Amino acid sequence: MVLFVWRLSRRQSMSYQAPYQDMQWLMQQAYQAQQLANFDSLADFDLDLANAIIDEASKFASGVLAPLNVVGDEEGCHFADGNVTTPQGWKDAYAQFRDAGWIGLALPEEYGGQGLPKYIAQPVNEMWLSSNLAFVMFAALAQGGSEILLKFASDEIKARYLSQIVTGEWTVAMALTEPNAGSDLGALSTKALPQEDGTYLIKGQKIYITYGEHDMADNIVHLVLARTPDAPAGSRGISLFAVPKYRVQADGSLGEFNDIRCTGIEHKTGLHGSPTCSISYGDNDACQGELIGELNQGLMAMFVLMNEARLSCGMQGVALGELGFQKALQYAQERVQGAGYDGQRVTIIEHPDVKRMLLSLRAETFGLRALGYQIAAMIDVAEQSDDKDQRRAMHQQIALLTPIFKGFSTEQANIMAGTAVQVFGGMGFVEETGIAQVMRDARIITIYEGTTGIQSKDLVYRKVRADKGAAVQALIASMKASLAAAREIAPLQASASRFDVALEQLEISLSQVLLDEAQSNAGLDALSVPFLMAMGGICCSWQLLQSAVTAYGELANDETYFGNVMALCDYYSSYHLPHAQASLTTVMSGSQGVDAYRF
Amino acid sequence: MVLFVWRLSRRQSMSYQAPYQDMQWLMQQAYQAQQLANFDSLADFDLDLANAIIDEASKFASGVLAPLNVVGDEEGCHFADGNVTTPQGWKDAYAQFRDAGWIGLALPEEYGGQGLPKYIAQPVNEMWLSSNLAFVMFAALAQGGSEILLKFASDEIKARYLSQIVTGEWTVAMALTEPNAGSDLGALSTKALPQEDGTYLIKGQKIYITYGEHDMADNIVHLVLARTPDAPAGSRGISLFAVPKYRVQADGSLGEFNDIRCTGIEHKTGLHGSPTCSISYGDNDACQGELIGELNQGLMAMFVLMNEARLSCGMQGVALGELGFQKALQYAQERVQGAGYDGQRVTIIEHPDVKRMLLSLRAETFGLRALGYQIAAMIDVAEQSDDKDQRRAMHQQIALLTPIFKGFSTEQANIMAGTAVQVFGGMGFVEETGIAQVMRDARIITIYEGTTGIQSKDLVYRKVRADKGAAVQALIASMKASLAAAREIAPLQASASRFDVALEQLEISLSQVLLDEAQSNAGLDALSVPFLMAMGGICCSWQLLQSAVTAYGELANDETYFGNVMALCDYYSSYHLPHAQASLTTVMSGSQGVDAYRF
Repeated sequence: MVLFVWRLSRRQSMSYQAPYQDMQWLMQQAYQAQQLANFDSLADFDLDLANAIIDEASKFASGVLAPLNVVGDEEGCHFADGNVTTPQGWKDAYAQFRDAGWIGLALPEEYGGQGLPKYIAQPVNEMWLSSNLAFVMFAALAQGGSEILLKFASDEIKARYLSQIVTGEWTVAMALTEPNAGSDLGALSTKALPQEDGTYLIKGQKIYITYGEHDMADNIVHLVLARTPDAPAGSRGISLFAVPKYRVQADGSLGEFNDIRCTGIEHKTGLHGSPTCSISYGDNDACQGELIGELNQGLMAMFVLMNEARLSCGMQGVALGELGFQKALQYAQERVQGAGYDGQRVTIIEHPDVKRMLLSLRAETFGLRALGYQIAAMIDVAEQSDDKDQRRAMHQQIALLTPIFKGFSTEQANIMAGTAVQVFGGMGFVEETGIAQVMRDARIITIYEGTTGIQSKDLVYRKVRADKGAAVQALIASMKASLAAAREIAPLQASASRFDVALEQLEISLSQVLLDEAQSNAGLDALSVPFLMAMGGICCSWQLLQSAVTAYGELANDETYFGNVMALCDYYSSYHLPHAQASLTTVMSGSQGVDAYRF
Repeated sequence: MVLFVWRLSRRQSMSYQAPYQDMQWLMQQAYQAQQLANFDSLADFDLDLANAIIDEASKFASGVLAPLNVVGDEEGCHFADGNVTTPQGWKDAYAQFRDAGWIGLALPEEYGGQGLPKYIAQPVNEMWLSSNLAFVMFAALAQGGSEILLKFASDEIKARYLSQIVTGEWTVAMALTEPNAGSDLGALSTKALPQEDGTYLIKGQKIYITYGEHDMADNIVHLVLARTPDAPAGSRGISLFAVPKYRVQADGSLGEFNDIRCTGIEHKTGLHGSPTCSISYGDNDACQGELIGELNQGLMAMFVLMNEARLSCGMQGVALGELGFQKALQYAQERVQGAGYDGQRVTIIEHPDVKRMLLSLRAETFGLRALGYQIAAMIDVAEQSDDKDQRRAMHQQIALLTPIFKGFSTEQANIMAGTAVQVFGGMGFVEETGIAQVMRDARIITIYEGTTGIQSKDLVYRKVRADKGAAVQALIASMKASLAAAREIAPLQASASRFDVALEQLEISLSQVLLDEAQSNAGLDALSVPFLMAMGGICCSWQLLQSAVTAYGELANDETYFGNVMALCDYYSSYHLPHAQASLTTVMSGSQGVDAYRF
């Protein structure tokens, strides 16, 4: 029993600490690269403020959220008689999170938010996701839901819901999926019958609704996709409705129950702490909804949320990679096993292959984090710039990078979680050490908000072929600028040369992807995931190269830290970049095997 | 609730079916490649018998074992007051397994076994591992334990234990690991005090003992590693002891309890059905053991078991890959989602990217299975040949391929399990569909019986550098023979060319690995896993190329099946082989990043 007790206490003590130095430095790098200091509208939100906020958030993440991550996994949610009870401590943590104003961090001050730019919100978001992904999913829902309402809802609906959501009095649930409509939302069949008072009667069954029912807030605003009776078939006939759990009266107070019944929660492999609900709307024909935006334009509204959610998924990859890395590093620094070359027993971090695994986690997380922070700063530019061309160019880059970041980061997070378990050896397979939770939690992020396959098709068709490669070429130009800078620095020659070769390969396979005649649609589809994975690896390698260039200039300030950044760049270009190139080789060699095989 | 019930029934119905055609054909290919018909001693064990046995085993696997795999995962084992209760149905299935004579399948007839050659036992083993890995771990223990006793035990000990083990009356448990002695067994501290009657008093705590305690058999023979009082430190002072749960009396009947107490079972991520026990030996100074083999030679005996176990782990990779593939294929053929190019709704297998994922599973499993069956047939040659040189050459090849097969197959199994979950989309994250179990179960196989890092060091130092590359060169020569044959066949030109380039790269990086001055030990250690992964991918590609050559000659017999084998070869060389080459690129570019980074 002693062993078990030791392990459990280990699991609790191996808590998350925000990677403060990385966050601060990479945030600064993104701030400078995107020249955010140029925008008067961001004058109040400089790096000093950013660092202060990160500091505050890191205390909350480590102190309140991280300890509950274990509780959520072990206890899970409870379902009985239509009610969902969250794990012990969840409700109280929600109240603290809400009262500290974290929910509306990047939402407008007009509705009670703090209006922070994305470049600050991104590292804060990363901390939430690392410390307790299952818990903070409601925060992403509040963010995405608010943005939909801001953009599409009538003033009346905004007035009814927005401040309540931004301040966290009420939560948001997104009701999209049905048993027969998952990735293909066009197949959904939930009905919305127009009523004389202008509202709609909602009727149907939805599944996979995160926080669709829970005990942490007084009301839940469901954003429900449904069809009106005369709607066209498929995805052109879908509308979006606001459907509160309790109806909201004219004075803003809560009225009668709106006939929304939770019929069960999922028994999931991971994310036990977040209730994934099946919900029945309008069993008693008394579920009232209000149209958001235009009729039959529901999917368009949903895409606003979706892009936001996909970028958040990319950060989830970073966050889970970081969590796995921290736990693995701590274990490797404490666990004594085997001997070094001098025959003395050592902690396992002294074994070069264990160090290799830790470096893989470290380098991948660092590169992905750098990319995620750059995208956040790009969003700030896209939102703040007065220059129409700059805004358009930024939107184009963000649109291109979104599926790459989502697809690659989430796939890598799964590999990283496996590597982190491997560092633990047999202890990794025992739940008490907690590392297996990272692996189980990570397993959904390549699936929800659009699978890796869907990201890849989005990338190849809508982001690369649709503009004849213009956005990718602009991205490659940025990469070449970093490459040219690296070429000036002697210790970066090896990494730069490797990156150069990879870029050349990318350009060749890009022309293959763009060539209309070269590929059948089916052939291109089957190559789209390798293409995305290649783009992801090259983006990470680029970010590490650019970071190494900057780090070289700062070596005098902190030789260990900035020397390490340069070492990560070398490591990634030697151990990871070749696999991006391998994926490009696949893109070039075509997809005959997929066509030829008959199941 | 309807949805939940549907899923649970789906989980039960998505059962395992032996891949009969693959097994039969690849077994035949191995039989012919290793010319097993030449051995008179195998005359009774021809392909007709092999097929009949496979047929019989497949019924048992699908009918009895596979349904219990779900039960084992959901119910798990129970521990109370030192007793372990296996999941419902386990005990009865054990009795059936034992009575049908499956345990002694490849063990000597002299002790009640059936004496089958490995080339037949391997596909049978694969079926057990696919249908219920957690359950059949006792069978591998019986096999390995018997081989240790056959090779090292005195006639007296053999007489006492062997027939009981071979017939399954008693089971075997291997007690190696201690809290501070995992990968480094040399650190163990369990004591063995010599007694006047020639026996030893065993005293110590062991962990991670599979089936160390259970309710399926009357007695459990623990093979325990321990130290005698004057033993040298480290791995040279370890001896092996037979320690039965109940002492065995002169007439073979069970005597008094031998002071072996189970103190708990692990709460594991996967393999819930197999009890992983912590055991305390000799709490009351009444735990009697008998020495097996020579004093201080315990690790040598253990290596016999270990090599056997490592090859079994490689087959576990194949088996779990196959299981994931079957479930994913069935789901993809039934699940309607999205539309084809003509706009009609389709089952998801029609989506090229889903087909790509299924082909990855299919090709990898096929290549690994072919490799596993070849190794089994090589063991038969090594055991049956009268030619000393042939025996030595075979032993050398088996020794080389063991860490490659173990390391690569188990790593790929984890990737494959992830891919299989991905095919299921959101349903994959829900436990009721059963695919998540494959992922959870697979997570340990890269760890137990020597982690991938340990396999890689074994490969690089003991199997490649120790003989100056002789064994690898012999392997490459076999590969070149297959390549030459493929070169003669027009439809295999593309695959052959890709394989040719990869082989060239392998030879270049091999010379790098062999060059004494090129690498520090630390540098080479950090490159050993990439080197193993490259060797694994090249071995798979080789097996697929050789299979495609044979398949081409049989196209007239079954155009679909053999055409598919050729398509798998093409697919693998286009989608997987480039990643093996990427790993070789890493080997060539060195390991500066590992040395340079300071944690």
